[in-house]
Amino acid sequence: MWDAEYDLIIIGSGFAGLAAALEARKHCSSIIVLEKMRVPGGNSVISGGLVAAAGSELQRQAGIEDSPELMMADMLAAGMKLNQPELVRIVAERSVEALQWTIDDLGVKYKPRLSHLGGHSVPRTYNTIETSGSGIIRPMLTRCRKLGIPVQLKTLFKRFVLDENDEVEGVMVSENYIFPNPKTGEIRRLRAKKAVVLAAGGFAQDITFRTIQNPNLTADIESTNQPGATAESLIEAIRIGATPIQLSLIQLGPWASRDEEGFGVGSMFSMLAGFPYGILVDRSSGRRFVNELSDRKLLVDAMLNSGREAVAIVDSKGVQHASTLEKCLKRGVVKQYESIDELANDNRIPLEALKNTILSYNASVEKGVDDEFGKPITDDLSPIQFPPYFSIRLISKVHHCMGGLRINTKAQVMHVRTQQPIGRLYAAGEITGGIHGASRLGSNAITDCLVFGRIAGRNAAQEPSRR
Amino acid sequence: MWDAEYDLIIIGSGFAGLAAALEARKHCSSIIVLEKMRVPGGNSVISGGLVAAAGSELQRQAGIEDSPELMMADMLAAGMKLNQPELVRIVAERSVEALQWTIDDLGVKYKPRLSHLGGHSVPRTYNTIETSGSGIIRPMLTRCRKLGIPVQLKTLFKRFVLDENDEVEGVMVSENYIFPNPKTGEIRRLRAKKAVVLAAGGFAQDITFRTIQNPNLTADIESTNQPGATAESLIEAIRIGATPIQLSLIQLGPWASRDEEGFGVGSMFSMLAGFPYGILVDRSSGRRFVNELSDRKLLVDAMLNSGREAVAIVDSKGVQHASTLEKCLKRGVVKQYESIDELANDNRIPLEALKNTILSYNASVEKGVDDEFGKPITDDLSPIQFPPYFSIRLISKVHHCMGGLRINTKAQVMHVRTQQPIGRLYAAGEITGGIHGASRLGSNAITDCLVFGRIAGRNAAQEPSRR
Repeated sequence: MWDAEYDLIIIGSGFAGLAAALEARKHCSSIIVLEKMRVPGGNSVISGGLVAAAGSELQRQAGIEDSPELMMADMLAAGMKLNQPELVRIVAERSVEALQWTIDDLGVKYKPRLSHLGGHSVPRTYNTIETSGSGIIRPMLTRCRKLGIPVQLKTLFKRFVLDENDEVEGVMVSENYIFPNPKTGEIRRLRAKKAVVLAAGGFAQDITFRTIQNPNLTADIESTNQPGATAESLIEAIRIGATPIQLSLIQLGPWASRDEEGFGVGSMFSMLAGFPYGILVDRSSGRRFVNELSDRKLLVDAMLNSGREAVAIVDSKGVQHASTLEKCLKRGVVKQYESIDELANDNRIPLEALKNTILSYNASVEKGVDDEFGKPITDDLSPIQFPPYFSIRLISKVHHCMGGLRINTKAQVMHVRTQQPIGRLYAAGEITGGIHGASRLGSNAITDCLVFGRIAGRNAAQEPSRR
Repeated sequence: MWDAEYDLIIIGSGFAGLAAALEARKHCSSIIVLEKMRVPGGNSVISGGLVAAAGSELQRQAGIEDSPELMMADMLAAGMKLNQPELVRIVAERSVEALQWTIDDLGVKYKPRLSHLGGHSVPRTYNTIETSGSGIIRPMLTRCRKLGIPVQLKTLFKRFVLDENDEVEGVMVSENYIFPNPKTGEIRRLRAKKAVVLAAGGFAQDITFRTIQNPNLTADIESTNQPGATAESLIEAIRIGATPIQLSLIQLGPWASRDEEGFGVGSMFSMLAGFPYGILVDRSSGRRFVNELSDRKLLVDAMLNSGREAVAIVDSKGVQHASTLEKCLKRGVVKQYESIDELANDNRIPLEALKNTILSYNASVEKGVDDEFGKPITDDLSPIQFPPYFSIRLISKVHHCMGGLRINTKAQVMHVRTQQPIGRLYAAGEITGGIHGASRLGSNAITDCLVFGRIAGRNAAQEPSRR
């Protein structure tokens, strides 16, 4: 009947899955993490490695007042209150604890300065020194190895196996699977004596499923995600009765480069330098059109949905905040110019309009208020005036699925019929829905994954053991 | 094993269910329609009885140019292209045929004038002489009786019964059920030799399920729907693998009265007179704030989501288009005033501001262009100047579920795993999703129900018979 048996089976090796595994290890010994790709880390490992936390040490040092309540308010505002408030509260309240855990327990290294990402009322975003999620995933994997938690690669989750009470008893998987070839792999049945944690991520790369939910997101629109970000695990959970919520809420990233594929190096350039310290202009008019620190939904609505070609521009002072500049220049994703004239000419932006735009923006910065678009003018902003200047051509790419499976505050997956937990099934991370509502704020995904991954792992590990 | 056997089992006795039954009757003889409430007609029978059709006889007589392409463009624009285009096309292309069927086959009587509802580029809406869906439902029920199609009331659909190939073979129901008491009713199993058609409507009255999908829609927000508009049939379909799409897209009606419960009589007053022939003003400022003929989503965003208390105002000329005026006055839903001064005073609207608003609107009407808000100024609009004047206080109420089950162009329900049809299962009407996208246009629901109800009935009846 069963090919192998564990206390806990965790599906997915990104932030949520590994956080669940490490937390669960305090309560049970036999844990396995399954990963369908040939490398661990899912989409987490290629993310920007930004972590939001409300009331952190770096905030204290910088004299920034923040609170879980303020973070929660920011999340609900961007989410258009489509978020489940009880889940939002948990993410905000435990954000510092999760961050601190990565520092104290995992030894993750962060830069000494916070970033201010769009939609956040204050700077509250930690940056890994690598400017990459690998800065967190690697220590997590190291810790898993030390604790004897295997991360089994090339293992595709196919089906849940339920017991006579419709509780999850195990999974059917395909081992030695070579993504995406369905002809590869051998079927095995793995038993979970305690529970299964589903941390399989989002479906931004699943053209069929994402187009069903939002027909605008055709194959023509690129994604920032790794190719394994597909929907089969989510679908299998729905098949056994998990409650799907808000599946049509799919986020595009407004900061990706038109001149490279995927998330690339340009996204972090825009996020850390272009948007906060520079301006975003409409290429054909040379004018600003939006608060550059708006949440992603507002930015995408102002770009993709309004047919604007956007270019972000930053000067040599603002560019100091970009940690991917060298790579961006090398790949031609960011271009460098000695003057605004050159920049305008090369990007085919009307020169006079652009000059006026910069003058007007600089006046706002000096005044301390952006009357026109309401960008928060913080103390560390300077007028755009120091050559050389840098530009990046932007395009919106499918980035994050806000919708997914409904969980409760214990990370249990709720049954669509009863709205009671499905026995012995937990979920965390992007496969869950309802935490971010209409628009996830940048750097809140990792916080969410860490907080709910740990909750899922802790509760799953404390389920009574079968037999 | 089975308590009874039919060729076709249809769940729901609204427009879609009855259209399916009547169409199916051409191809098979043994059909039953199940209805959980103690009266037939579901939400359809209390609807306004408005039917949109592109290229109709009344349009021809009035010299209005229209086409399925234009109707489709209107649906996609309001739907923010979240609609499945292949389904939209079918609704638009077969709208006239469906309308004509109600006239020629059912003997439905319509008023001789079209209405112009928000979001439609041209007037294309037929009105039943009763200003009510009962004007269509009653002849449908009469026809069912004549053709020997029983509509079995107080019968709650509980479960699908699947055969060994996971095709739908029948349903488990509770007969003599008294809504909403779960302790009532006796369980019976009904077999469908050909197929089951699910036409169980939307879930606007299901506080639990709608709040899960959109936490803003708490119990405090009223609904226009009858109390039986709950989610259990949708949920049961998801349980057997039906693909849920866009469940969080739930429409509020911006035209309902603050002074009565439910859909009431005020909704049709606003839709037929207040919005097209009058103005919508913000009570506290006395100013217009939106094109009154916007689609419902834009109107609700401009009202509920912006905290505005809205009042619609129309004069004695515009009010002639309202067919529920007497009832509205009697119930105090609409109030009548001899002067604008009286109206402003009684509604606590700043008088001078309101007078200026009316002057400015009247100037737009005379000029033929509404520069301020872009309301289409058609030939039949007049300045607001003939006393008495009428006002209605508005509040947004939960009205329609755009999301639901994914169907293909044959009205087959698609399996979430394979995206192939679930064997012998069809669906039509509000329980399906993806036809209206982000915002259903007024009077398109009946068209959708008639068109896809008939498609579902025709195809279901032509399934090969079991045994």
